[in-house]
Amino acid sequence: MMHLVLADSELELVPKKIIKHPAVVKGKSKILDASLHHTAMKILKDWRRRGRPDIVHFFLLLANDSILNKEGWLRVYVHTRNNEVIYVKPETRIIKNYNRFKGLMEQLFEYKRVPLEGEPLMEMKKESLEELLSKLNGKRILFCMEGKKTKLEEVLEEEVVCIIGGFPSGDFLSPVYEFANEKISLYDEMLPAWIVEMEAIVAYEKKFLW
Amino acid sequence: MMHLVLADSELELVPKKIIKHPAVVKGKSKILDASLHHTAMKILKDWRRRGRPDIVHFFLLLANDSILNKEGWLRVYVHTRNNEVIYVKPETRIIKNYNRFKGLMEQLFEYKRVPLEGEPLMEMKKESLEELLSKLNGKRILFCMEGKKTKLEEVLEEEVVCIIGGFPSGDFLSPVYEFANEKISLYDEMLPAWIVEMEAIVAYEKKFLW
Repeated sequence: MMHLVLADSELELVPKKIIKHPAVVKGKSKILDASLHHTAMKILKDWRRRGRPDIVHFFLLLANDSILNKEGWLRVYVHTRNNEVIYVKPETRIIKNYNRFKGLMEQLFEYKRVPLEGEPLMEMKKESLEELLSKLNGKRILFCMEGKKTKLEEVLEEEVVCIIGGFPSGDFLSPVYEFANEKISLYDEMLPAWIVEMEAIVAYEKKFLW
Repeated sequence: MMHLVLADSELELVPKKIIKHPAVVKGKSKILDASLHHTAMKILKDWRRRGRPDIVHFFLLLANDSILNKEGWLRVYVHTRNNEVIYVKPETRIIKNYNRFKGLMEQLFEYKRVPLEGEPLMEMKKESLEELLSKLNGKRILFCMEGKKTKLEEVLEEEVVCIIGGFPSGDFLSPVYEFANEKISLYDEMLPAWIVEMEAIVAYEKKFLW
């Protein structure tokens, strides 16, 4: 099984501090979104990296539609900057439209599960990255710039936890370097989360699925 | 070089026939978008598959951020249902926000190039799939359900043209089966364009880049 963790992702509700800013009122979205709330965000700490639900969206679209997931070998988790964790069922079909996806995330923050009736497909728990990782079996591979330049197929094991940053720039907020069994780097530049993810998924398929 | 062609993609302006429908006027987008124009679209031919700029967006995000593209081995083309072709420069950074991406596509339909000043990063030409393919060197691999179940690494050549459908359901509109040197299928179900793309890109990297 491959466990894929998007760590310290920049997914959050609009902070109270800026909720009455005209740009936020006009944008309507309750999820902080840098492309809508840019002018309002500048008084927030770390504003340059925050408000990126789009990264979470691409990450989930790629994971849940992948052959690895369809074959039952993948589990996906989204950890946020405020230490929430979203558990995503493998059978979840991620909504393709970005605006509707944000609507779904709003529901998740409010009710902690979607859909509201029947078996939930996504659940949100108050949980740190450390608490999440303590539940998952397998070698922990952290993708980071400081990591060793390594071919993925050499380090992947059948039971593996891949940890990918869910932020556009900067460093992890969680003390993730302590938790990793191996730190690796795929390229000389910082790569978007979905590119690291695609390399990890296909490498795992090649090594264990075919 | 790998040439990646998104064929018969469902990218178009809102057709005149529905341009005054309340759902279209309210939605504001000039690009046909099934998630906004659903009710208006039902009088259009093929409405169930049309209006999917999101597929083009994911496709380009994955391609242009990929390691293969950063290393200079990838060229990307978006062919549409109305026989336009978008040529995308490898150095183009695809805009992450979906709504802004649609704004860019509007500009492209109007001015045939973006940005308007300086060297264009994307250009749109009136061109059929056949005309596009006649310009590209390499073995033509078509991904389709009727194709032979094959491991990608066995059929990829260094000069290769990979043709992927840019529609959510149904079949190619262009006579693409005639143009292909090899038809292959990666899985027993229809896969989203971006999943086929990720398999093709990573398989090519493994075979020729590393």
